Amino acid sequence: MIHQLISKLDKHQRIEHAQAHCDIPCGIYDPITAQIAAVTVVRMLDLMTDLEAKGGEKGKDYQNTLSRYIAVKEEHAEKAKAEIRIIWGDYIKPPHVEKFPELHGLAHQIMMLGSKTRQTTDRQAALDLVEAINKFAEIFWETKGITTKRAKAPYAPALEVVYPVL
Amino acid sequence: MIHQLISKLDKHQRIEHAQAHCDIPCGIYDPITAQIAAVTVVRMLDLMTDLEAKGGEKGKDYQNTLSRYIAVKEEHAEKAKAEIRIIWGDYIKPPHVEKFPELHGLAHQIMMLGSKTRQTTDRQAALDLVEAINKFAEIFWETKGITTKRAKAPYAPALEVVYPVL
Amino acid sequence: MIHQLISKLDKHQRIEHAQAHCDIPCGIYDPITAQIAAVTVVRMLDLMTDLEAKGGEKGKDYQNTLSRYIAVKEEHAEKAKAEIRIIWGDYIKPPHVEKFPELHGLAHQIMMLGSKTRQTTDRQAALDLVEAINKFAEIFWETKGITTKRAKAPYAPALEVVYPVL
Amino acid sequence: MIHQLISKLDKHQRIEHAQAHCDIPCGIYDPITAQIAAVTVVRMLDLMTDLEAKGGEKGKDYQNTLSRYIAVKEEHAEKAKAEIRIIWGDYIKPPHVEKFPELHGLAHQIMMLGSKTRQTTDRQAALDLVEAINKFAEIFWETKGITTKRAKAPYAPALEVVYPVL
Amino acid sequence: MIHQLISKLDKHQRIEHAQAHCDIPCGIYDPITAQIAAVTVVRMLDLMTDLEAKGGEKGKDYQNTLSRYIAVKEEHAEKAKAEIRIIWGDYIKPPHVEKFPELHGLAHQIMMLGSKTRQTTDRQAALDLVEAINKFAEIFWETKGITTKRAKAPYAPALEVVYPVL
Amino acid sequence: MIHQLISKLDKHQRIEHAQAHCDIPCGIYDPITAQIAAVTVVRMLDLMTDLEAKGGEKGKDYQNTLSRYIAVKEEHAEKAKAEIRIIWGDYIKPPHVEKFPELHGLAHQIMMLGSKTRQTTDRQAALDLVEAINKFAEIFWETKGITTKRAKAPYAPALEVVYPVL
Repeated sequence: MIHQLISKLDKHQRIEHAQAHCDIPCGIYDPITAQIAAVTVVRMLDLMTDLEAKGGEKGKDYQNTLSRYIAVKEEHAEKAKAEIRIIWGDYIKPPHVEKFPELHGLAHQIMMLGSKTRQTTDRQAALDLVEAINKFAEIFWETKGITTKRAKAPYAPALEVVYPVL
Repeated sequence: MIHQLISKLDKHQRIEHAQAHCDIPCGIYDPITAQIAAVTVVRMLDLMTDLEAKGGEKGKDYQNTLSRYIAVKEEHAEKAKAEIRIIWGDYIKPPHVEKFPELHGLAHQIMMLGSKTRQTTDRQAALDLVEAINKFAEIFWETKGITTKRAKAPYAPALEVVYPVL
Repeated sequence: MIHQLISKLDKHQRIEHAQAHCDIPCGIYDPITAQIAAVTVVRMLDLMTDLEAKGGEKGKDYQNTLSRYIAVKEEHAEKAKAEIRIIWGDYIKPPHVEKFPELHGLAHQIMMLGSKTRQTTDRQAALDLVEAINKFAEIFWETKGITTKRAKAPYAPALEVVYPVL
Repeated sequence: MIHQLISKLDKHQRIEHAQAHCDIPCGIYDPITAQIAAVTVVRMLDLMTDLEAKGGEKGKDYQNTLSRYIAVKEEHAEKAKAEIRIIWGDYIKPPHVEKFPELHGLAHQIMMLGSKTRQTTDRQAALDLVEAINKFAEIFWETKGITTKRAKAPYAPALEVVYPVL
Repeated sequence: MIHQLISKLDKHQRIEHAQAHCDIPCGIYDPITAQIAAVTVVRMLDLMTDLEAKGGEKGKDYQNTLSRYIAVKEEHAEKAKAEIRIIWGDYIKPPHVEKFPELHGLAHQIMMLGSKTRQTTDRQAALDLVEAINKFAEIFWETKGITTKRAKAPYAPALEVVYPVL
Repeated sequence: MIHQLISKLDKHQRIEHAQAHCDIPCGIYDPITAQIAAVTVVRMLDLMTDLEAKGGEKGKDYQNTLSRYIAVKEEHAEKAKAEIRIIWGDYIKPPHVEKFPELHGLAHQIMMLGSKTRQTTDRQAALDLVEAINKFAEIFWETKGITTKRAKAPYAPALEVVYPVL
């Protein structure tokens, strides 16, 4: 019964989007905001590690700084998820999924990795988040017929980020 | 290469979640907030239709009321999407997707329908949104081993909503 | 002089609401969102107690987890207050208060208890919050002529929650 | 049974607050933010009236301006309600209510008037909101032993606002 | 080339504002919200110092209280910056800057001090923030032809705040 | 007296930042989010013009679409302002202002243009906003020793945007 609903909805959507591709100009979507957010998550983890390494007294200054790093990490992990959800939910249509069948699983991975970087201080999870969003960005730009390159982001920790070639 | 990433990430996640099911108690997820939000979208469309039907002069009172209906519609369509994204992205794990392979497509439909109810005044799209979220709720409760029923929501427009049997 | 204002305002409102009951269909109010939020506050306190009990090193992982529990507790205590304020301030009218004269005091208790659960880690205050909101829900559904029941919520800590019988 | 809960909660709270008055310094509460917000609601209504009076073509410029006035009106009516809710729910304690028994009713009036100014373009309702919040401010400052005066606010529409004498 | 843009923009703006001063009534701007926010930052630092001084066990209660003080400090430091940015960016026009050439530098100081009070627990920085915003308030009221006085704020820590004489 | 405060604050800040440049790694700032936001403002104005040009009946569908364009315009104009304020207020320090004395005036122009694009439907103001933020981006990247180029943004209306050469 669920399958019926989906195929009914699918048909409904397909028709809409066939029209959509003719009549309505595309919106402004850019995965760079999600990519910056994911890089920021790694950065916050590095600052947390540095802070802990300094050791010393764990008074209110330490707490003030640590709680700010945690809050910024939370905010950017969530932002990365939200931005990808918008592109996936608003821009990606069934024809894109047909061409790139990995898209749903990749979007889901990004959600799970985003949550993991909130719940833990696992740097590898944050690097995986950056990479998964890079992959998403590559597909996104490919759907628009724009080639991409990888370059080091111009801020610490200088991770590789996917950019469109403009 | 993307497939490799996903399968690598998958493996990574699987292990994590095997542990997760042992060590960490489940969170509090409840699709009812998304369901109320979707019902509210239909309600706003009905109020917009009523307002337009009254006709008469379209002065600032009319605009004040209409713009509030539109804004509430926007807000609740977005809330429905956000709440489903949270359950899909934070609670749903690969084993759930294996058991209910329609989950990714259904979550994606909800995003598209949510956006359509924002972009248009199409009542059928809003009804489809309510129904798609009902379906999602049925699967969600099934994953928790809780049976569900359908009952009329205790507010206009008295649509059928899926509830857990408690 | 204040009493004069109130009685003047009262009269003003009464007339409005006599009309309101004829002309405008009721909105969609549901205390369940406040109830879920209050239950979440108890849940966070339980997770905080578990975390502290584990003892061990209080490094950045501990802080990351604890600060997330605190933030979610804050957010949901505030959400519980906000949702009740909306029903109390937007749905409840003088005739309801005449019939249920305890409503103002109950709403005020909910505000105070909500704040107490933010300011402290007192589990009893959080249980009192759940119960006070359950009472509010019972009155609310009674004003709509809908009977209620109590059932264990389908998530930890499985507290009793008031539900409408649909 | 509800009365029992309230009196039980009351007792619980009283003890807490007897302690609270000894141990914890008072927070920073100031009704001026609610007062400015309420005055802004009147201001927006005046600008809406001016705009409509200009007549002329109702194209996108007109809509852009009108929808901004409506949105600012919404935002400030809601802000006025939220600020009063905070003072009423966080600062006002049962002993204050004993001394000023009109407080609950007055807070409820402010919520209703705030909602009315969102739902309509009724200038009198907005003036009533300003006045009800002025009354609330007078009581608030009296609980702190600070006398008040009334003066014209230094911005249009130059309504009388209650200020503490400092 | 940048200078050319600015002078081009300047000319463009000047003309607009010459018209603006004739045609559009002034908005409702009041630096008091920024001033209250800055005072709150000092207050939070004092409460953090008190809490730390109590010493004792640093369990979840301590963390709950400390993290709330830090969060409120963050929020109000940011609010102070945002409110000043609004007055500086929306109300202050080139003719004001000509008359008070220190305005840009003062606004920039407020941004930097606001950030410093977020990043550190330096009480002097918070006092400097209060004072810089007081200065901004003096200029603001002077541009409106309203004289000001200084009085102790009616809440701890009873700092001197600039008020308009009404 | 104000000048004294500023020079006192200045000295205070200078010392801090001399230290800051040794001890604390730079944050992640990127003007691209402001640039995307400004381009979105132009896009919304174009969509508003297209919608109006279609003419026809101005019922609830028209209002739904128009009010969404206006709201997105509002949101992105404000976002552009907020993002520039963050870079200007948090990253830009007195030594940068000494080297680029136009920075304060440019930041102020961006605030005024951002407000103008909210208040009006003037496309030229939106183009000026894009250009002013492009200028700001050029200076920003220059302070980091990174060269820039101009390229057409990969979405309508394909305006020239400043990008770092990576």
